[in-house]
Amino acid sequence: MDIKSYLADRKNAVEAFFGEYFGKAGRPAVLREAMLYSLNAGGKRIRPVLCLASYEACGGNGKEIIPYAAALEFIHTYSLIHDDLPAMDDDDLRRGKPTSHKVYGEAVAILAGDALLSEAFVVLTNPLLGPAVRPDNLFRAAGEIARASGCSGMVAGQVQDILSENSEPDEDTLQFIHRHKTAALLRASATAGALLHGGSTEIVDAIDRYGQSLGLAFQVIDDILDVEGDTAVIGKPAGSDEKKKKMTYPRMYGLDRSREIARTFVADAVAALDAIPLSVEPLRELAFHLLGRSH
Amino acid sequence: MDIKSYLADRKNAVEAFFGEYFGKAGRPAVLREAMLYSLNAGGKRIRPVLCLASYEACGGNGKEIIPYAAALEFIHTYSLIHDDLPAMDDDDLRRGKPTSHKVYGEAVAILAGDALLSEAFVVLTNPLLGPAVRPDNLFRAAGEIARASGCSGMVAGQVQDILSENSEPDEDTLQFIHRHKTAALLRASATAGALLHGGSTEIVDAIDRYGQSLGLAFQVIDDILDVEGDTAVIGKPAGSDEKKKKMTYPRMYGLDRSREIARTFVADAVAALDAIPLSVEPLRELAFHLLGRSH
Repeated sequence: MDIKSYLADRKNAVEAFFGEYFGKAGRPAVLREAMLYSLNAGGKRIRPVLCLASYEACGGNGKEIIPYAAALEFIHTYSLIHDDLPAMDDDDLRRGKPTSHKVYGEAVAILAGDALLSEAFVVLTNPLLGPAVRPDNLFRAAGEIARASGCSGMVAGQVQDILSENSEPDEDTLQFIHRHKTAALLRASATAGALLHGGSTEIVDAIDRYGQSLGLAFQVIDDILDVEGDTAVIGKPAGSDEKKKKMTYPRMYGLDRSREIARTFVADAVAALDAIPLSVEPLRELAFHLLGRSH
Repeated sequence: MDIKSYLADRKNAVEAFFGEYFGKAGRPAVLREAMLYSLNAGGKRIRPVLCLASYEACGGNGKEIIPYAAALEFIHTYSLIHDDLPAMDDDDLRRGKPTSHKVYGEAVAILAGDALLSEAFVVLTNPLLGPAVRPDNLFRAAGEIARASGCSGMVAGQVQDILSENSEPDEDTLQFIHRHKTAALLRASATAGALLHGGSTEIVDAIDRYGQSLGLAFQVIDDILDVEGDTAVIGKPAGSDEKKKKMTYPRMYGLDRSREIARTFVADAVAALDAIPLSVEPLRELAFHLLGRSH
């Protein structure tokens, strides 16, 4: 299969929904503008794509759940806006563009993030946006996504990440940060796709294990790219983790060992798919594609 | 009826849930500590009480939905933490105590707010926390609350409030701010109670009108208290709206006319209840009790 055109198709569908959903006139205009600015700043849309690919692996047509998949990108985008704030990572650039607070000021940036998180749940509690999905399946997916976002998920990882700046890396803390800050929402994105389709426990569990391993691989690869990538590819100055003394895999294990760890996580992800009798090719190709970014 | 003991009972039940829900050990400890610090900083718990009183008016037992009512206070508390940030209202005190960013720093304060908002939806998507509630009714209530919180609700009001600082008050903008910043979530709190019980359209609509009028009354009264109250009662320095040139009812209409407007809103709220054949005494008394605060 051609994974690149698979990704591009789904990315386009998700991005079209951003405009549909937030493009209507609304007051105050600057709030919607700020939300759309960050949503439209680019990105691989990997969380929505994971959700769509899992739903499709279960036999669904991804077109039926574009709004719910897009809601995952609302959550990811809110987390980036808040991460970039002066009180957090204090980044001026994100994906090569000025960050939200640089364009709209801190107050509107904080509130645009808050609104994106809220709107994710507006979408995820609206059965009318995906009538092919059984409401109880949608409800289950919404719960999974909420848990991955809160104080036992993404936010816990973000707090630990900030607390651990300038500390000597230790394995336990490093794993905690990666598992929560990045992997939690990636895992939930994959799992939500299976839940939206009403997959069996066996299938949901397998896709959950896939999502978890893929999420960990993703963050290790991101850490590696921060060391070796150039600004044009990663959209922010290379070496910024090192500058902030972030707790990363390369700092803990060096680049070679980190690459090996990423490969192992990807292999774990792919192995998890073997347990289920589904059309998992896009999920598998997606895993290898992500790994390819670091070579 | 004794509205004060009615309020105290329900306030206690909601506050007990905060400890139950967030009191367990969790990592990082500072995140849970910051969330609980702000939740436990006091307050009338008016949103949870409204939700409980509406549910009870429909014939339910409030004890069945304490977690869902408490989730409304998670959302209110997150909005206060973010409102108080240096980039927003820059307040050092809230309810007589140092604000979250003063105690935990800005990064943790922002993230504690983010986590509270997320956890509200963790609770509101978990049918196990209120087995007496039909899951589809819970789902409907969660949607109502999400819409009241997002870019067409509370956050819209907050952005407009900040944009309008130092502007000459105009009626349209003033009403927009009050309707969104405060009334939206109060309205949704009342409505959610009826939805959780599966109330008929007629009942949900009447309680919705009640909540909307009560929410508007509430903010006018708050504006009045900010002018005439003393710091001990309102928990923040009196006159802070004036200092920040916030767009308020007293600035627009003066105190006397503002008191009259508050009375009219309360009368509207009470009149909305006449349409429904329910035991609405607590809802009615609650409205008069709020009005009493400004006398």
